[in-house]
Amino acid sequence: MKAFRIAAAAAALATTALSPAAFADTLVKNVNGMRVDQDGKLHRFAAMLIDDEGRVAELYERKDKLPKKVDYEVDGDGRVLTPSFIDAHLHLSMLGFAAMTLDLSDTSSLEEAKAKIAEYAARYPNKAWIIGTGWNQEKWGLGRFPTAAELDAIVPDRPVWLTRADVHAGWANSAAIREAGVTAKTKDPEGGRIVRDAKGAPAGTFIDEAMSPFSAALPEPRPEERDLAFDKAQRILLEHGITAAADMGTTMEDWQAMRRAGDLGRLQIRVMSYAWGIDNMVAIAGPGPTPWLYQDRLRMGGVKLFLDGALGSRGAWLLADYSDAPGERGLPQINGTQLRNMMSRASMSDFQVAVHAIGDAANREVLDSIAEMNDTYDGDRRWRIEHAQIIDPEDLPRFAKLGAIASMQPTHETSDWRMAEARLGPDRLGGAYAWRSMLENSVPLAFGSDAPVEPVDVMSGIAAAVTRQDSAGEPFGGWLPDEAISREQSLGAFTAGAAYAGMAEGRFGSLAVGEWADFVFLSDDPMMVPAPEIRDIRVLETWMGGHKVYDNEG
Amino acid sequence: MKAFRIAAAAAALATTALSPAAFADTLVKNVNGMRVDQDGKLHRFAAMLIDDEGRVAELYERKDKLPKKVDYEVDGDGRVLTPSFIDAHLHLSMLGFAAMTLDLSDTSSLEEAKAKIAEYAARYPNKAWIIGTGWNQEKWGLGRFPTAAELDAIVPDRPVWLTRADVHAGWANSAAIREAGVTAKTKDPEGGRIVRDAKGAPAGTFIDEAMSPFSAALPEPRPEERDLAFDKAQRILLEHGITAAADMGTTMEDWQAMRRAGDLGRLQIRVMSYAWGIDNMVAIAGPGPTPWLYQDRLRMGGVKLFLDGALGSRGAWLLADYSDAPGERGLPQINGTQLRNMMSRASMSDFQVAVHAIGDAANREVLDSIAEMNDTYDGDRRWRIEHAQIIDPEDLPRFAKLGAIASMQPTHETSDWRMAEARLGPDRLGGAYAWRSMLENSVPLAFGSDAPVEPVDVMSGIAAAVTRQDSAGEPFGGWLPDEAISREQSLGAFTAGAAYAGMAEGRFGSLAVGEWADFVFLSDDPMMVPAPEIRDIRVLETWMGGHKVYDNEG
Repeated sequence: MKAFRIAAAAAALATTALSPAAFADTLVKNVNGMRVDQDGKLHRFAAMLIDDEGRVAELYERKDKLPKKVDYEVDGDGRVLTPSFIDAHLHLSMLGFAAMTLDLSDTSSLEEAKAKIAEYAARYPNKAWIIGTGWNQEKWGLGRFPTAAELDAIVPDRPVWLTRADVHAGWANSAAIREAGVTAKTKDPEGGRIVRDAKGAPAGTFIDEAMSPFSAALPEPRPEERDLAFDKAQRILLEHGITAAADMGTTMEDWQAMRRAGDLGRLQIRVMSYAWGIDNMVAIAGPGPTPWLYQDRLRMGGVKLFLDGALGSRGAWLLADYSDAPGERGLPQINGTQLRNMMSRASMSDFQVAVHAIGDAANREVLDSIAEMNDTYDGDRRWRIEHAQIIDPEDLPRFAKLGAIASMQPTHETSDWRMAEARLGPDRLGGAYAWRSMLENSVPLAFGSDAPVEPVDVMSGIAAAVTRQDSAGEPFGGWLPDEAISREQSLGAFTAGAAYAGMAEGRFGSLAVGEWADFVFLSDDPMMVPAPEIRDIRVLETWMGGHKVYDNEG
Repeated sequence: MKAFRIAAAAAALATTALSPAAFADTLVKNVNGMRVDQDGKLHRFAAMLIDDEGRVAELYERKDKLPKKVDYEVDGDGRVLTPSFIDAHLHLSMLGFAAMTLDLSDTSSLEEAKAKIAEYAARYPNKAWIIGTGWNQEKWGLGRFPTAAELDAIVPDRPVWLTRADVHAGWANSAAIREAGVTAKTKDPEGGRIVRDAKGAPAGTFIDEAMSPFSAALPEPRPEERDLAFDKAQRILLEHGITAAADMGTTMEDWQAMRRAGDLGRLQIRVMSYAWGIDNMVAIAGPGPTPWLYQDRLRMGGVKLFLDGALGSRGAWLLADYSDAPGERGLPQINGTQLRNMMSRASMSDFQVAVHAIGDAANREVLDSIAEMNDTYDGDRRWRIEHAQIIDPEDLPRFAKLGAIASMQPTHETSDWRMAEARLGPDRLGGAYAWRSMLENSVPLAFGSDAPVEPVDVMSGIAAAVTRQDSAGEPFGGWLPDEAISREQSLGAFTAGAAYAGMAEGRFGSLAVGEWADFVFLSDDPMMVPAPEIRDIRVLETWMGGHKVYDNEG
């Protein structure tokens, strides 16, 4: 799939980074430039002056007189120039590892997936484990979880472990189940579920916390592999015009890999890092957020907490029963007291808090917790709710009142809508993937991909946000089309909005004077092309800090 | 004790570091300058030109003409100037924490120690644990280990945990033993020993691996405390004219504290970091040694491995029985195969290996292992043997032949000689603390303190190396005086030799042109004063990279 393809064209990353050339003023002229400012307003410009450090020195409209004495000129040939994109929610190391392992995200049936697994196993006979990700039984139209027996028929000899697209479930063959030490006697862990056969034996799919024995049994990646994965993730992002990303759950191992990249001049994106839980936050950043490191390319500014699971695996925590599973309301992974303790621990050291909340019960619990935190912790806290997928309409106005940011992923909506209708029924969709309601309630909106759960492609994200339709044009007219937002709003959520959510405004995201000159040339104008064609817009070049870091012509 | 005293004069560290002033050429003139080069040769000079980056640009002899056009001049007033010192073996975080906890290293009897513990407990009624270090039952002339009952009589209510000066034994009261969960039924762990009373119950002292339950029970320091400890360690070093140190056993927590200091511009010494074991090495540095970071202030270049324990606690691994404990030969902490596997794992990724070896059996085992490694791993490996205290004379010539560096601590000799004679008897001292034999066998020699085991004071180290006598002049004529070395050789081992052992030659250590201008002004000439007066020489100022970072006049 496109998002995971590593273009050979992704270019010699290290070269530019290792020699940050002492360049001088550069004028980028003759462009169809557009940017969204921190107030969400679209501005057009025709030329941009970049200073000798790589920051925006001036923007010019078509009528303005351009400076004559510059050291370098870049002729944009009239092409579209926008700020390069910011992904407000993804998983860098997982994205990289997904690109290095079996990717099932483009399979549309179980049979297709089985063929791909068999081919992969044959191609890599020496891999001790077959590891992969990206499957989605909903997308396959399977109506049930896949089984170990189905995998055993293809790979009987080695363990196979394949995580679902949302990473909230895993599919194992019998060899992997043996390695993980899971048997019919193993009880469901708190916050997790073992899907079982009629006799109570593990059937092959493991939900949320029930995945832990498999994570523990997997061979630990070597640091060389971690470095490679990080580099692959960077290349994928630059190829898609993304120069900054919020890493939503940085482990100590992830952090060390990013530091190694920074130390060796190979850090080519800007990472807003949120620690994977309080322990990592304390161990890595210690007494408070790190400074911006490596010329605004890395900062640990906050912590990622998980309150519930995902809708697909029925882990999202709902206020009422799942429509398609009476008696089930999902699995809160921690209780409200634990959540408050963690939020408080982070806040007392001035770390920003980003809480994963998908179900309406989870979102309400986070909002309640934020309300309590606000009694104690004043200042600019920028509480983030990650996903914020299903909101009870009553809770929508609370976001802005409490100072919460909605960090959402538009492509989830196009992947999920059928499943969401099944899980929730028709009467609980009033606050589902409710981008427009968020904006109308003055909630700061930040967009991301949740990669590798979804592809990183930003144009697909903007298209989804604008149309509420998937790439096949489904459903006709868009799903809950009242929640569609404008192109400007979508671009803003993928640039200035994502920067604000990551405490990075003024550094990058809106091409304001003084910010880093991080920008892309696009093949077409996302404000002008017919909506269905937004998806076809290609990134021609990606620039960061005044350097070209990706060129689709190689 | 002096080494742990935090001079208020240690000055505003952060200020200079946060603003690395864009200074220009500086001439330091009218000095009695001396330096030891990488060949061990002493050179004299009268002035030094420092370039605008803080590196040595030129050295001038008295007869040379000095440059006239310089931006700044520093008049040395004829004072002695030497390279600032390098401690080739210490423990930074332990040094810092020791300065923050109860320090018993200046106690000369059990009664004195008890009084100090009682006073400390009274002064800090809110500390949940009383933690300290520095005791030495040999120095107390106790003839046995201290007991829990002796502590209970002073502090009955709270746990007390005091590590021995060599950190190879710990002394606990009953409350601490309870917290650690150790009982009469607890078996001695491999590589450790529980000292027991007549009934087999823990008597109060725990050797080597038997200390682990206490380390586990201790409250984990908060990152703020780690940062404070690191800062304290830095101040202690700068106050003693030490601007670089090999941290012999860097944990992930230590590393993060050092990175935080570097990121915030508060790293004021140069750290040659050796990871605490393979796991930390891999987790921190990954595929190979880190680059030199923060302008040559931090690098993880190798790994510290432990083969045996210490002589005082009879953990050192000997070829024959302890003279004062027939049937005991010490405790190798890992076997030869494990040692070779670890050395190989480090070497295949080009990490330098530093192995703690004190007893003659341990040293022989390391030499045997190095011989095997040399079959596989060529290039500049600089195998380090840490302490190298007791060498079978037959093994002495093997060091140079195999390319091993002897990393030794002269003050250990003056603290240990009585104990060493008791442990080894008179006939096994032919290769004991054998500095001169090392040099005569062409073994590169690096000196350190092993702080906080010994004070960091370098002048005490040089005095010990030159006289083989302690500060009281004991024993008369020096202990095994044939092993005394010259003043030049001692200064060399604390500067150029320690730099070479840490792969830092050309960066710092010998004030060669192109190296950082790291130097000290001393109160007297260590080459000229009567030997007993070397200890009285004070550090007047410490400079690093052309900046003054400590001034004893505040």
